[in-house]
Amino acid sequence: MSFIYHRTVRFADTDAAGVVYFANVLSICHEAYEASLNASGMNLKAFFTKPSVAFPIVHANVDFFRPMYCGDELNISLIPQKLSADKFEIAYEITIADVLVAKAITRHVCIDVNSRTKQELSAEIMQWLETNRRDAEGAERRKSREVM
Amino acid sequence: MSFIYHRTVRFADTDAAGVVYFANVLSICHEAYEASLNASGMNLKAFFTKPSVAFPIVHANVDFFRPMYCGDELNISLIPQKLSADKFEIAYEITIADVLVAKAITRHVCIDVNSRTKQELSAEIMQWLETNRRDAEGAERRKSREVM
Amino acid sequence: MSFIYHRTVRFADTDAAGVVYFANVLSICHEAYEASLNASGMNLKAFFTKPSVAFPIVHANVDFFRPMYCGDELNISLIPQKLSADKFEIAYEITIADVLVAKAITRHVCIDVNSRTKQELSAEIMQWLETNRRDAEGAERRKSREVM
Amino acid sequence: MSFIYHRTVRFADTDAAGVVYFANVLSICHEAYEASLNASGMNLKAFFTKPSVAFPIVHANVDFFRPMYCGDELNISLIPQKLSADKFEIAYEITIADVLVAKAITRHVCIDVNSRTKQELSAEIMQWLETNRRDAEGAERRKSREVM
Repeated sequence: MSFIYHRTVRFADTDAAGVVYFANVLSICHEAYEASLNASGMNLKAFFTKPSVAFPIVHANVDFFRPMYCGDELNISLIPQKLSADKFEIAYEITIADVLVAKAITRHVCIDVNSRTKQELSAEIMQWLETNRRDAEGAERRKSREVM
Repeated sequence: MSFIYHRTVRFADTDAAGVVYFANVLSICHEAYEASLNASGMNLKAFFTKPSVAFPIVHANVDFFRPMYCGDELNISLIPQKLSADKFEIAYEITIADVLVAKAITRHVCIDVNSRTKQELSAEIMQWLETNRRDAEGAERRKSREVM
Repeated sequence: MSFIYHRTVRFADTDAAGVVYFANVLSICHEAYEASLNASGMNLKAFFTKPSVAFPIVHANVDFFRPMYCGDELNISLIPQKLSADKFEIAYEITIADVLVAKAITRHVCIDVNSRTKQELSAEIMQWLETNRRDAEGAERRKSREVM
Repeated sequence: MSFIYHRTVRFADTDAAGVVYFANVLSICHEAYEASLNASGMNLKAFFTKPSVAFPIVHANVDFFRPMYCGDELNISLIPQKLSADKFEIAYEITIADVLVAKAITRHVCIDVNSRTKQELSAEIMQWLETNRRDAEGAERRKSREVM
């Protein structure tokens, strides 16, 4: 089954328009990525704090379909995909009670932190990519069968 | 039992020192307050989005004992207390694996949102205060018995 | 001349990787938009706090070319463009000492806040679009002449 | 003269109550601290990004007197004071058009980053403390004379 991250909209996420501030939606997606890494047994502290290999974001985009209010229960699904030897992307869908409210993508490159030069995707991220990709495909196939 | 909010430290919470940015610790405490309100059956959207009665913070303080890193599993306990007819405060304790890492307090006044004048604590917040105060006292008593 | 917003990277903008957290770059772009509205004589409080007409973001994207560190002096230029009767976008370029470090776009629709339905761009935003578009074109032309 | 940091309230600072989210007021104070360090010739990147000596906050408190809205022009004054061989604090006052809207304090200890043990305040922070303390006293004296 595809990985789903559950997240309640917090007061700190909102702005004076009464809804989630647009850039915070990308932070919520990144949380889903972190939760997925953690669910795969990755040590988040080692992964994000002074690692020798890192995966900085080189591109992000997000589309908003409906406003999100404080207290809303978000479900964020994510599907990662390898793009090249040193690059992958993650596609996110945010729903509230099965209604799509936003979609986003983050694109990451693998770098050696000290030299800040690109390098091939590490073994641990490759495994995470494969596991989550397969899980997501399984979910897609089940969804297709239900539709037929 | 006292209300406990579980929260994983996120990458977005951290700063270039590699630990949670100091002001974000207060945001995490406020999340615990929101989670406690929600657990008591309060509708968070109605409570925080264009309400007629609100509880703005007039004072906050926080003490830091140990750094918090990305991936750390925080437990935030909270004990609210009525201070006067129109004011209450919440004491928070943040622990990681039973080690105290931070303590904080937020003090709130009850206001009529349109006039921005103080008013008596509403019935719903009074009930929340009483329930959580009693729960916390029960936890304190149990802790004392264990110590004896 | 094209509008340029100057902004020092703050400690709160950074994350445990030691650089600006990716989603905060979009917040910095939005600040440039606010500064530009203010420079055009718009009342920011009225524009963003309980207005009757608002311009929520329906799409955003951002490309990162170089990391930004605490203390870095950013220059954010912005070029808005009308897309249709009820929609406009803003293109942002962030440079440090004339080196491009990030590019971003935000796309906005005009809505009636109470009904949350689309409506034609208001007169005040149309004037801002025209002024800033013309300014930006002037800057582009000057830049072309310098190159020749 | 005492150091004053000017800061416009941004949309991202606000929450669904239409005013600055309480914890963000402490971030704004920290910005004033950064701006003051920078004005004293300190290199912010070196100071905050992987330094060997750091000044983490061990305590913070804030009192709120009036709400701050998007677009409000804040003036933040700061007065630092040495507390002991390894500790100092900064007192902040935030005003809008000479009306006090919030006060805050941050308390910092000097640590060796690698061992995370306390150490004596470094020469550069001692100089900053003395300069800003003297400046602030001068401002206080002038204010007293005006009152008389």
